[in-house]
Amino acid sequence: MIPRTAIPKGVRVFTPEETARRRAVEGKLLSVFQRWGFREIITPTFEYLEVFEQPTGEDAGDQIFKFVDRQTGRLLALRVDITPQVARLVATTLRQAPLPLRLAYAATVFRYHEPRAGRQREFEQIGVELIGLDRPEADAEMIAMAVEGCQAAGLRAFQIDVGQAEVVRGLLNALQPAPAVRSRIVSAIRRKDPLELDLLLQEVPGDPGLLETLRALPQLYGGREILDQAARLHFPPASRAALANLAEVVTILENYEVAEHVILDLAEGHAFEYYTGVVFGAFARGLGYQLASGGRYDHLIGQFDYPCPAIGFTFDLERVLAALAAAESLPEVSGPDVLLIDFSPDKRAAHRLARLLRDRGLAVARDIIKRDLAGSLAYAKASAIRRAVILGSAEQPPETVLVHDLVTGTRRTLPLGAFVQTVAQGDSPWEI
Amino acid sequence: MIPRTAIPKGVRVFTPEETARRRAVEGKLLSVFQRWGFREIITPTFEYLEVFEQPTGEDAGDQIFKFVDRQTGRLLALRVDITPQVARLVATTLRQAPLPLRLAYAATVFRYHEPRAGRQREFEQIGVELIGLDRPEADAEMIAMAVEGCQAAGLRAFQIDVGQAEVVRGLLNALQPAPAVRSRIVSAIRRKDPLELDLLLQEVPGDPGLLETLRALPQLYGGREILDQAARLHFPPASRAALANLAEVVTILENYEVAEHVILDLAEGHAFEYYTGVVFGAFARGLGYQLASGGRYDHLIGQFDYPCPAIGFTFDLERVLAALAAAESLPEVSGPDVLLIDFSPDKRAAHRLARLLRDRGLAVARDIIKRDLAGSLAYAKASAIRRAVILGSAEQPPETVLVHDLVTGTRRTLPLGAFVQTVAQGDSPWEI
Repeated sequence: MIPRTAIPKGVRVFTPEETARRRAVEGKLLSVFQRWGFREIITPTFEYLEVFEQPTGEDAGDQIFKFVDRQTGRLLALRVDITPQVARLVATTLRQAPLPLRLAYAATVFRYHEPRAGRQREFEQIGVELIGLDRPEADAEMIAMAVEGCQAAGLRAFQIDVGQAEVVRGLLNALQPAPAVRSRIVSAIRRKDPLELDLLLQEVPGDPGLLETLRALPQLYGGREILDQAARLHFPPASRAALANLAEVVTILENYEVAEHVILDLAEGHAFEYYTGVVFGAFARGLGYQLASGGRYDHLIGQFDYPCPAIGFTFDLERVLAALAAAESLPEVSGPDVLLIDFSPDKRAAHRLARLLRDRGLAVARDIIKRDLAGSLAYAKASAIRRAVILGSAEQPPETVLVHDLVTGTRRTLPLGAFVQTVAQGDSPWEI
Repeated sequence: MIPRTAIPKGVRVFTPEETARRRAVEGKLLSVFQRWGFREIITPTFEYLEVFEQPTGEDAGDQIFKFVDRQTGRLLALRVDITPQVARLVATTLRQAPLPLRLAYAATVFRYHEPRAGRQREFEQIGVELIGLDRPEADAEMIAMAVEGCQAAGLRAFQIDVGQAEVVRGLLNALQPAPAVRSRIVSAIRRKDPLELDLLLQEVPGDPGLLETLRALPQLYGGREILDQAARLHFPPASRAALANLAEVVTILENYEVAEHVILDLAEGHAFEYYTGVVFGAFARGLGYQLASGGRYDHLIGQFDYPCPAIGFTFDLERVLAALAAAESLPEVSGPDVLLIDFSPDKRAAHRLARLLRDRGLAVARDIIKRDLAGSLAYAKASAIRRAVILGSAEQPPETVLVHDLVTGTRRTLPLGAFVQTVAQGDSPWEI
């Protein structure tokens, strides 16, 4: 018997402190997106399963929470990925909208994977899609925004690993290994495992130059110079075009003055089957997981019968928060600004003062429980409230306000009239 | 065969315009809550079914979206109501937190009811819970916040209907009608159907004075004077205590100077089995549905083994938006502030100018597609972008900025240096 208070594995309730931190980081990321001209959309929490049943590179099918629609008998699925929902929106409601479209979202997605560090079964993605452009300028815009997002979130030491899905795909298409071997090769390249890769490639017949290039890929990781190293290797035309595309993107990123955060990684083929061009991931120093990831997916919207190139990426909020925690850079949060305590029997002065302070934007909780001043102050302190504003206590003359700063422990008694006037003028009442 | 673009009944995708309106109203409501000292929490989208399987007055069981947890085989349920989740949080994680607790939330809930005007199967609730106080001050705080929420959302003509669940419950407990008759009586009282009520009460034996009071209840609707009218009727002690409680709440609401928005309704017993005291609902003039509803539920948290009084209420965002639409008071929204168009081959000036404008808080989309100026301006206009800022076009001298206002159609050419300096100083570049 599970107690009624039990919470299912992999989901969480967030306390006021945790929620304030989440909203702070979410707001900073959405603000970056908004200032780059991206507009938020909202998608439904569940869909017909078919919307998500597409090759996504990851084996999403097993991860989907499914249930039966009681009325139609059809299978519904909790949102496992927001990008297909955006693709469907673009192909239907927004089909007549002028391109490019810049869309943003912040929403939780649901996956049945095993909970592990920074990964829940319900977790929030905060991302963007830039739709209708297949130019390197679009790729560079995404990567520059990922850099700015990391900075806005408060991360100091981070890097963006940038690859191009078509580099590896071009090589494999030219070599044509058996499908089972192919996926093991991809995995070995991504894990940068030269021994495993070498063993696998011994079984693959084909152009020795191309095989040599595949063997070299895990080492092609670094600054712009690795594109020069790559130029000396043997590539099929599709891979060469991908390298040329990557070089263009890097040039634009240099113009953006963000190239210092970018590491090229020719072995990067993240979520391989999904992406069709530039792919990238953001990492915090010393942490092995991606805080953000994305790439170009020029064929997805076409699956909704509206062929249209697109690129997008998303921050994983749980991982960003974990990275901020590891760097001791979580945003500081606190309780309401003021606990307003009124001991006089007629509470009208408290009502008016509360309204004035709130109109000024301050968060004012009223102490409407009956207790003594010491009790009220202990409550304020335990509730992370910065200041108590006290009316009508035995410790102050009539027509005064007693301001008790709970952080410094200092107290000041001020004339009620002057206090009210200061607040009404829009000035800070703490600096009278 | 349902097309892959189909959306399940009762859920929606919101376009950028719709989303901006939702976020605007949501932000205004959350801001009211925050300024009253309430702190947001986040609850999971699904729970073990048991969390929601409690008497809620409404027959929630049939409305719940259920599915099986693949690993435990237990039934999970999509969030049908946030209050039980808050109750569980208070009884567990926050059990040691000092009382009262002021908690807020904004989240979607899921109900299998038939979609009708302003009601979806996934819809957003924006609400608060005030936990740990059973005093009329707490009830009044909730109602005053409901008034302020309506005002902040932009509603002009609205009222809050306030009742007390124990008035009707006290009468019925004294009369003890058969359970089936009892629920029909409650329904007839709520619908203010005197004929039906009269027919039902003819079957009920008991004190004629109490029966007479029940018959009179649907007429007890109006200002404070109905409490005087009620004082002349025959009530059992529990109902009298409820009326005295209501009178205290009204007195405090008069002190809050919000009584003009309040209508007393002694027939109100909203979601009867759930609530244990004051109940209320917000209505817009001319619309028959509640924009917000709530009440006191002193027994719910106790079901999670932590007896604790509480009162809460929630706005239904879809209905608030419908009321704003009916009153032609929806918030105005627009696209990004600026489309930045750069025809020069080297885009570094555009990158820097975009960064400057964004640092100033402006939403700046860059036109990174290759097209002529007329095409770019048509795009800006269709995308609801207010201004185009143009660099390097054939229509302007070098080292200038051409500012094209798409609303007024006016154009100005400004020296690039002066424009940059104005923005860098934090002044508006539109008023040079």
